[in-house]
Amino acid sequence: MNKGNLIVLSGPSGVGKGTVLKKLLQEYTDIEYSISATTRPSRKGEIDGKDYFFLSLEEFFQKVDNNQFIEWAKVHDNYYGTPRDYVDKTLGEGKDIILEIDIQGARMVRESYPEAIYVFLLPPSFDELEKRLNKRGTEDEKTKEIRLRNARTEMKELANYDYQIINDDLDETVEKLKAIIIAEKCRVRK
Amino acid sequence: MNKGNLIVLSGPSGVGKGTVLKKLLQEYTDIEYSISATTRPSRKGEIDGKDYFFLSLEEFFQKVDNNQFIEWAKVHDNYYGTPRDYVDKTLGEGKDIILEIDIQGARMVRESYPEAIYVFLLPPSFDELEKRLNKRGTEDEKTKEIRLRNARTEMKELANYDYQIINDDLDETVEKLKAIIIAEKCRVRK
Repeated sequence: MNKGNLIVLSGPSGVGKGTVLKKLLQEYTDIEYSISATTRPSRKGEIDGKDYFFLSLEEFFQKVDNNQFIEWAKVHDNYYGTPRDYVDKTLGEGKDIILEIDIQGARMVRESYPEAIYVFLLPPSFDELEKRLNKRGTEDEKTKEIRLRNARTEMKELANYDYQIINDDLDETVEKLKAIIIAEKCRVRK
Repeated sequence: MNKGNLIVLSGPSGVGKGTVLKKLLQEYTDIEYSISATTRPSRKGEIDGKDYFFLSLEEFFQKVDNNQFIEWAKVHDNYYGTPRDYVDKTLGEGKDIILEIDIQGARMVRESYPEAIYVFLLPPSFDELEKRLNKRGTEDEKTKEIRLRNARTEMKELANYDYQIINDDLDETVEKLKAIIIAEKCRVRK
């Protein structure tokens, strides 16, 4: 049996990764979703092992020490991590698994899984932003500079990805993501 | 503007390439079809420049001499070729173009277009054939040997392709081919 593919969906903050993933999972059932571990307390209605794996700080850092997360990060006051065993088990069963993660996290994942499929979600205004910033504008120079630097950083990051999708229309974005997942299942392994 | 992708659909004789292409073009209109040139006389109802480019033998071989075909071959008593100008013009306009062609033709295309997307269509019984031939069977040795050799040749050829689709169910095959075309439009150019 062939191993499944690990699909890493990433992109700048606020681009709509979570919304895209949610709609994908509604429409396309032939893929597993990677459940995160977290140290934040569970909220009402959240189920351990379904929404998150809820861990104490001690448990979390024991897993960090044992290299049991393929990536982890602190967000506000809580820690979040992607358990390696669940990902590897799913791939080993021949199933695809998708991971929605920020750019920094994707960089960590790439160290363990260089053969994963990396999809970069772009804001619809990204191209426009660049064009606009390259023209003489009315924005003050400092704001322009920061935006241009961010845009450049993101652009450089894009070169490490296999696919890019401009998240202009949610339905189209999900269609493209689905196409990428299906196409990669047909890829000839070299 | 980005250049379009050249999609090469190939596979063993009789695998159903023509049927797959026809259904794809009915369902997916965002791609051009490469029209062949031929020396065979036009049949009733066929339109020059739509069904084929009808050429005399002299015209055909002048184009061969001028490297104006990306591939050409003799089939029965007639010559067929894929005009380079039409393919390049379409790609230059940013449109995808699909070419349905036998394995030998795909090899010729690869010389001019190594960056094209090569899709190998496999018969549903291909895996089975191999398994069956590896067991001791009732077929006479010579037939078995020829089939095994053909299967092996085809398997080797597969390594030169980007994608494989087992043509088990026509609808599924067309879905996968469409997914490949859409996914490749999202690919990050390195």
